[in-house]
Amino acid sequence: MASSPTPPPPAETARNGNSDDGSKGEGLLMIDLERVRKSLIRQEDSIVFSLIERAKFPSNSSLYKSSSSSQIPGFDGSLIQYIVKETEILHSKIGRYESPEEHPFFPDGLPLPLIPCPPKSPELLHGAASSININSTIWKFYLEELLPLFTKQGDGDASSYACTAVCDLNCLQALSRRIHYGKFVAEVKFRDAPEEYGPAIRAQDRDALMKLLTFEDVEEMVKKRVAKKAMIFSQEVNLIEKDADDKQQNCKIDPSLLSRLYGEWVMPLTKLVQVEYLLRRLDK
Amino acid sequence: MASSPTPPPPAETARNGNSDDGSKGEGLLMIDLERVRKSLIRQEDSIVFSLIERAKFPSNSSLYKSSSSSQIPGFDGSLIQYIVKETEILHSKIGRYESPEEHPFFPDGLPLPLIPCPPKSPELLHGAASSININSTIWKFYLEELLPLFTKQGDGDASSYACTAVCDLNCLQALSRRIHYGKFVAEVKFRDAPEEYGPAIRAQDRDALMKLLTFEDVEEMVKKRVAKKAMIFSQEVNLIEKDADDKQQNCKIDPSLLSRLYGEWVMPLTKLVQVEYLLRRLDK
Repeated sequence: MASSPTPPPPAETARNGNSDDGSKGEGLLMIDLERVRKSLIRQEDSIVFSLIERAKFPSNSSLYKSSSSSQIPGFDGSLIQYIVKETEILHSKIGRYESPEEHPFFPDGLPLPLIPCPPKSPELLHGAASSININSTIWKFYLEELLPLFTKQGDGDASSYACTAVCDLNCLQALSRRIHYGKFVAEVKFRDAPEEYGPAIRAQDRDALMKLLTFEDVEEMVKKRVAKKAMIFSQEVNLIEKDADDKQQNCKIDPSLLSRLYGEWVMPLTKLVQVEYLLRRLDK
Repeated sequence: MASSPTPPPPAETARNGNSDDGSKGEGLLMIDLERVRKSLIRQEDSIVFSLIERAKFPSNSSLYKSSSSSQIPGFDGSLIQYIVKETEILHSKIGRYESPEEHPFFPDGLPLPLIPCPPKSPELLHGAASSININSTIWKFYLEELLPLFTKQGDGDASSYACTAVCDLNCLQALSRRIHYGKFVAEVKFRDAPEEYGPAIRAQDRDALMKLLTFEDVEEMVKKRVAKKAMIFSQEVNLIEKDADDKQQNCKIDPSLLSRLYGEWVMPLTKLVQVEYLLRRLDK
């Protein structure tokens, strides 16, 4: 596959420079390292936008309570669970979860797509990828830890709950997509250096894999970049230029929150996904 | 109401400087001009963000065709109509359309909220406001005119349709909210100068009202500001500073598109909403 001449790749994929190790490579499309890198960077923008939009609303804690006056009759859970679950049912009908980049928060009992979706093979990823979904962890850290850090305490009226919940869902989906993109990152890294990852995979050595996947200088750079994005994208734009201090003071979201989000949650959870994926990467 | 001492206004409203004319003012809450202005400016950011996010996907024209292989069986319409309609049914159940700022694209037969929503009076707006919904016009210009201007021709696979449609819905809702916010703008302007608007309203003179509502220098400033926002929010952010020309070239969305969007559609349609509202403002 790697040395023989191949036809031009389809638009959504491209050959990367290194050959696949062949152990499970047949039928897998090549992934372009540059494309993965660009997607990760582009997804940072989406995450920043979604947090800025959520910050427009107060905390609206009634949305997240399992038992409150604003609970849906007959539904056993919080309003946010209801909205996310029902939205996922709708999106599943139009094929959202046929994409390897999308992961539902409530995967149980989702309907099959009502429209024809493309056949799933050849895949970009090893088949084990579909069994990895850490959305329950993402859900928990987003609602319990992140949300209180960037929303003002307070409860708007019930008619603002839907808009607030849509913003939450956009945040959750953007974070979920970015973190599970670790599957593609891991696949690219593995194909680039199968000889490096092989022994740790065969030994099922999580710590060794985590070490291989950790590049502290890169992580520091990412943390700085997302903070800069938060500052730029959440500034108050005026036709008359203000000075830099003024811009920073008027940010709709604290730039340091983004560094922390990436440092404490996004990057560690992406690496967790990568480890989970790699542990199964040589499965037959 | 205006001259006698009043208790501090609730958080979501505030007294404005001028008194209401009283003709339909009893029971109406006061609107803060500064708050309306701030909301309009903040909504520009949401519109720019939503367009940048939609621009990630190709045109995906199959989403918009009434008759295509990717149509939902048993549903008479395009995929985008299906997704928007079903999403609005869900959001209606949690009270989205109880807010005077939200307008459905498919208002017929929407279910009542399943959760208790706040009583609607006293209102910020005259009761006639609820009869004004120009979303069919917004739908048409967005899909037929705007979308082709900022998306690349092409069809992704069906699993990307749901994400594309969600981006469309975010754009449509952001535009709808901004344009229908004209109701609040008109109410503030009317309360500020009832003697100016009264004669044109009583004469039901659309042209005179449109003239009263048009401030060309302000419109030019808004067009410049939204273009600047598009440039800033859609730039490629790097830790190493690039020069201004480079930033502009790498924009994810053309800044001049935003000027055009506001000049040709958002501001004229907002004024249309204002005129429609004012024409009914003195109705008993």
